[in-house]
Amino acid sequence: MQNPDSLPVVITYEWVPDFPRGLVRDIRPRWAFEEAGLPYRVETVPFQPKTEAHLAMQPFGQVPVLRMGGQTIFESGAILHAIGQQVPALMPTDRTTAVMQWLFAALNSVEMMSQPWVFMKAAEAAPHIFGAAPPPEVIDRAAARMNAKLDAVERVLAGRDWLAGPFTIADIAMTEALRPAARRGALDPYPALQSYIARATARPAFVKAHADQMAHWQAADKARAASGA
Amino acid sequence: MQNPDSLPVVITYEWVPDFPRGLVRDIRPRWAFEEAGLPYRVETVPFQPKTEAHLAMQPFGQVPVLRMGGQTIFESGAILHAIGQQVPALMPTDRTTAVMQWLFAALNSVEMMSQPWVFMKAAEAAPHIFGAAPPPEVIDRAAARMNAKLDAVERVLAGRDWLAGPFTIADIAMTEALRPAARRGALDPYPALQSYIARATARPAFVKAHADQMAHWQAADKARAASGA
Repeated sequence: MQNPDSLPVVITYEWVPDFPRGLVRDIRPRWAFEEAGLPYRVETVPFQPKTEAHLAMQPFGQVPVLRMGGQTIFESGAILHAIGQQVPALMPTDRTTAVMQWLFAALNSVEMMSQPWVFMKAAEAAPHIFGAAPPPEVIDRAAARMNAKLDAVERVLAGRDWLAGPFTIADIAMTEALRPAARRGALDPYPALQSYIARATARPAFVKAHADQMAHWQAADKARAASGA
Repeated sequence: MQNPDSLPVVITYEWVPDFPRGLVRDIRPRWAFEEAGLPYRVETVPFQPKTEAHLAMQPFGQVPVLRMGGQTIFESGAILHAIGQQVPALMPTDRTTAVMQWLFAALNSVEMMSQPWVFMKAAEAAPHIFGAAPPPEVIDRAAARMNAKLDAVERVLAGRDWLAGPFTIADIAMTEALRPAARRGALDPYPALQSYIARATARPAFVKAHADQMAHWQAADKARAASGA
């Protein structure tokens, strides 16, 4: 039995409101560890206000942070890369270049264009939470920029199951870059992307990671109710 | 003398219009190679229309693409990482984690929020080129998202010259994530970021890379004029 103190630690929020649940980025390292069959522990930081201890680990006050092998790592891309270096099944040593280019493509090409559109659609759906929505032509322009990226990934994934050979950390990043947009209908015109997301989220490691994240928020709700918060 | 056929090749556009000149992302590998003192060659693809050969190398039809050691690599983050693996001065082996987290921070946290604001400010300044600008409150919200990231990097860079110890590929990515926003005044409230950009762009390797990119477009203009295009 492994000493719990030597396990990697995924640091996430103690609690979040309903709307990001299931999409909080701690799911990225949770999913990677489940794929690898590696146990990990969870520690938490407050959602609001940000603490100095949190900002010292993660200058943007976000999550996840990973503590592993004596190092504290922020940025989900860097965390996936660090796990990939420990777990060749998730970043095969003969495919590092392909994995890295698709990891960056997920985060710096796809998510770069999908996230602004998701923010706008969120504002359109719930202006009381996210602020007034921009006019339709602004949303349309954001959609066009996103779709230029989705068109490209659709063409690639029409010909293969995963981005870089076997399932890798790049697929974790791409799935997570796409899921928030998929929830709002962005993938409706893209059959290969829809199959890809279905295939990725049917993996037992994703199912477990997602369930564990949701259970974490439910436990936080109970703890808050019990403390009268 | 090295055989020119064995040199790394940076693939960029044959020509671009005036407004992106100096910011086209081929400057990222150009700058890294200049820092390393490594020679490279330049090859080109048409800006428009995209060719099949280009899309086969870079599914989004963008640049740069790097050909090095028998591999073709896209995504400027992955390209910088690949160069960093060859050049320990740009990614010290005892600092890989710090370099990687700041490389991803530049591209997935800072550029993720600065680029949408830059697009909006570009539309505001030149709607005949970039389409109608969104209303001021939408631009303000994008500015607030960007500034949350800039605040964090300002705090970090108030205490040190470079992000991860010595100058590394993370500083190339961060400088390039910030320069388009800096041009439009985003750094005016941030003295540490302004000094950082001044320090980074005063490096002889940046100066050379930038001059080489500008000379490339000027040569393309001349070639077009000579051919009557």
